[in-house]
Amino acid sequence: MAETSLLLYGARNSGHAYKVRLFLLLAGIPHSYRPFDLSVPRDRRPAEFRGAAKFGEVPVLIENGRALVQSNAILLHLARKHRRFGAKDESGWDEITAWLFWEANRIGRSYANLRYHRAMNGGGAPDLVAWFEATAYDDLSRLDAELAGKTFLLGELTVADLSCAGYLLYADYPAIGIERWPHVAAWLDRIRALPRYRPPQDAMARETADV
Amino acid sequence: MAETSLLLYGARNSGHAYKVRLFLLLAGIPHSYRPFDLSVPRDRRPAEFRGAAKFGEVPVLIENGRALVQSNAILLHLARKHRRFGAKDESGWDEITAWLFWEANRIGRSYANLRYHRAMNGGGAPDLVAWFEATAYDDLSRLDAELAGKTFLLGELTVADLSCAGYLLYADYPAIGIERWPHVAAWLDRIRALPRYRPPQDAMARETADV
Repeated sequence: MAETSLLLYGARNSGHAYKVRLFLLLAGIPHSYRPFDLSVPRDRRPAEFRGAAKFGEVPVLIENGRALVQSNAILLHLARKHRRFGAKDESGWDEITAWLFWEANRIGRSYANLRYHRAMNGGGAPDLVAWFEATAYDDLSRLDAELAGKTFLLGELTVADLSCAGYLLYADYPAIGIERWPHVAAWLDRIRALPRYRPPQDAMARETADV
Repeated sequence: MAETSLLLYGARNSGHAYKVRLFLLLAGIPHSYRPFDLSVPRDRRPAEFRGAAKFGEVPVLIENGRALVQSNAILLHLARKHRRFGAKDESGWDEITAWLFWEANRIGRSYANLRYHRAMNGGGAPDLVAWFEATAYDDLSRLDAELAGKTFLLGELTVADLSCAGYLLYADYPAIGIERWPHVAAWLDRIRALPRYRPPQDAMARETADV
């Protein structure tokens, strides 16, 4: 795939962007990475960012000049194209796709917001934080039940794991004590032990070209 | 596709289930539909429901004995299998997939929760409702901007429209005055005018077999 040009736009604290970066790193796919500072107001961001991220969202993956958006859509695209971390048959793809939508609707919303409000926003309205906490804990409990007795969600590592783990791998801004969900904690450690793994605080902070 | 057996489990007020029912109705695909009462506590629900919906979520589509979950994953599966409301090429599928993930992470979370708290739950904590309102309004504004000058999100009707419109088509429990987003309002009317369209209050309430 040396003919493919890949440029990933992300941000230091975007677990959604980290999922995509993690795929490219673990699969050993050459790419460039460029972080943006999402704390800069939308109308004062560089023209490059506004061009790449029309609605101010990261990640955006530029593949041979074409922009791909939505982290889980990008993961599905990359898994099919590069035949890495995907499924063996259509039934397996259905299962992976269901997990990716669960992540988008559940833990990638509940936990991501809990982390933002509790660890980065210095609090937030108590009722709001309580709701994020309750839903994030529900989602973690479901993930814990699903991971009991498994190495990864579908047995072998797939993009379902990379997606669901994206925000949970940020150990520098812990929103919770993850040890309360022991199967989740052990699964995160298995991901951290994979060859070519890099933690988010290292992988997401600086512009870089990885080949 | 007369050889395919399809049984959809849903609930009267589940816009996620309605998306799938709408696909089957608009495409004229024979199927059975069975609603569950989600107000019954999890441990007192019928064994059939607990078997079909392990985590208490609808929709579940039983296709020839195999259970498919997550509304947007089901839409992708059906669109590819039946070649209806899908894309012409892989680039189009990427675009549809990105919209489906946007729905799962955004309007299918923000608007669905706003509707639940404002119209069905009799209120809810003010800070929480204010947050759902702010995020739902952001999402509706983005949808409105995207729909300006378009008939449907990708030009022709696709599952991206069915997904993003699912909850917004519930006119019996309006959470907002949709006329503030005129392109969204006109697009919903175009969906309501499609052949074989049935509104959610009619399509989702009763057990039925549609052939």
